[in-house]
Amino acid sequence: MSAHFERVALIGLGLIGGSIALAARRAGAAGRIVGYARSEQTRAAARRLGLCDEVAESAAEAVAGADLVILCVPVGAMRAVAAEIGPALAEGVVVSDVGSVKGAVIAALEVLPAHVHVVPAHPLAGTEHSGPESGFAELFDNRYCLVTPLPGGDSGAKGRLADFWRALGANVEEMAPERHDLVLAVTSHAPHLIAYTMVGVADDMRRVTKSEVIKYSAAGFRDFTRIAASDPTMWRDVFLNNKAATLEILGRFTEELFALQRAIRTGDGDQLHDYFTRTRAIRRGIIDAGQDTAAPDFGRAPTRKPDVRKPSE
Amino acid sequence: MSAHFERVALIGLGLIGGSIALAARRAGAAGRIVGYARSEQTRAAARRLGLCDEVAESAAEAVAGADLVILCVPVGAMRAVAAEIGPALAEGVVVSDVGSVKGAVIAALEVLPAHVHVVPAHPLAGTEHSGPESGFAELFDNRYCLVTPLPGGDSGAKGRLADFWRALGANVEEMAPERHDLVLAVTSHAPHLIAYTMVGVADDMRRVTKSEVIKYSAAGFRDFTRIAASDPTMWRDVFLNNKAATLEILGRFTEELFALQRAIRTGDGDQLHDYFTRTRAIRRGIIDAGQDTAAPDFGRAPTRKPDVRKPSE
Repeated sequence: MSAHFERVALIGLGLIGGSIALAARRAGAAGRIVGYARSEQTRAAARRLGLCDEVAESAAEAVAGADLVILCVPVGAMRAVAAEIGPALAEGVVVSDVGSVKGAVIAALEVLPAHVHVVPAHPLAGTEHSGPESGFAELFDNRYCLVTPLPGGDSGAKGRLADFWRALGANVEEMAPERHDLVLAVTSHAPHLIAYTMVGVADDMRRVTKSEVIKYSAAGFRDFTRIAASDPTMWRDVFLNNKAATLEILGRFTEELFALQRAIRTGDGDQLHDYFTRTRAIRRGIIDAGQDTAAPDFGRAPTRKPDVRKPSE
Repeated sequence: MSAHFERVALIGLGLIGGSIALAARRAGAAGRIVGYARSEQTRAAARRLGLCDEVAESAAEAVAGADLVILCVPVGAMRAVAAEIGPALAEGVVVSDVGSVKGAVIAALEVLPAHVHVVPAHPLAGTEHSGPESGFAELFDNRYCLVTPLPGGDSGAKGRLADFWRALGANVEEMAPERHDLVLAVTSHAPHLIAYTMVGVADDMRRVTKSEVIKYSAAGFRDFTRIAASDPTMWRDVFLNNKAATLEILGRFTEELFALQRAIRTGDGDQLHDYFTRTRAIRRGIIDAGQDTAAPDFGRAPTRKPDVRKPSE
């Protein structure tokens, strides 16, 4: 089968852009992959790692002659990048993005010329690492990629983008942009803000030292630190661009937290037990759906120190 | 080297009790291991799995002749179990526990006879699974075990218990009970309540379906579901028995969450970016301290579906 696109331009070569390049190569889904990143350092790293067939010196140069352009930059940078590449885009090119917010990105992409096919998308994949070194070809395997097509958009372009993502290993689904932003506020944006907050509180507690927080983190806290290690610029932009939905979910969260705090204060053990039993079932559903490992503790290997001695030694 | 204790009695054979049995056997740290669990089903499972050398039919029978007794039951059950075994305890036996709260457990253990050596302890280890089938010998490797000795307690007994835990793979540290309860409120109890709350909110959102929450959980939410799948009885008891410290930390958390919500609402990107940069550093500290894996996404294997096809196929 021939490649899905002849020339794929990736603007932004961090975790997501780099992983798209590697996954597209693995799948043979792109004839040629051209990348661009704003920072000289990232471009040099991408060249050293051989992420793309070519690393261009400007975004406009990267997109010239491309039949697929994917913007892999923080949500807050989408408008400026779209304005920059607009004049260089060929007629009929598919322009997509990987932004975690869709409403605001769609508004930002309105600066693109009318002769391109805009197909917004969001692969639900990532790790706490960022930068070109963190990309890997398997990142999208069995993850969902949500496509949020524009009303009256070109269905051929949409189909070609969906096929591309399937070739990269993803399960593709369609969703309206407003619904995307609400669902992601629940499954991603609110959890991230909450994790950031909890880690900040621990860091801030004058009565508990930082070394205690770190030493005794395996009791639950360390899980929050992974999410709270995610890229600060990306997440700043997510919250600023999905304000309404994020604040709505955080409002619900606070309400519920207050109810549980009250149950603790009044000693209502039944309410706590019922609540904790219900949440356990959700985990089971996620494992059954193939969206997480069933291995205890995420299958983390025990981190045995070399100097642990057994009494028989 | 000879075994640390001749006869170790484990009251409660769930994740922790079962893992102590397996780790003690691995280390040769116990001459004989006798277990007891309240439920007939758990005792049968323990026998089938061969967790202990012997599974007794009552707690009193299990502790008879033991030189170390470890109570591995939920915090709320400690007092009743202590009262039950009291008359059967030999003079000079070391009685310890694994409770996640120390102040309340120490109060509960006051019902024990004066001729035993009470040495409270708390291994900071566990997974989201519970029950006798979930135990494994490596659970305590390179985890901390906090010993919270009583004022005027026997130092020989304390030293023997610490040696036992070291043989099981743990790093042993001493801490005052009140400090333990505050530190654990930060690193464990508050994070658990927050995870339970977030998962409950997602489950509850009428505007987002449960299947959406599950399908799109890899965007961050799934991490919370692991912690929120922890044993409901254990956690009910933790919150009811460490009220003051947990509510204090939750108060700080809410304060901080409100500040970040306000930054989102007012569009203060700098405040968000600074906060998220600070929390990233904590993660680094935890990895450097050997308390979590540096592998992205906790080293979770990608869950590739068998039917994902590449275009070349």
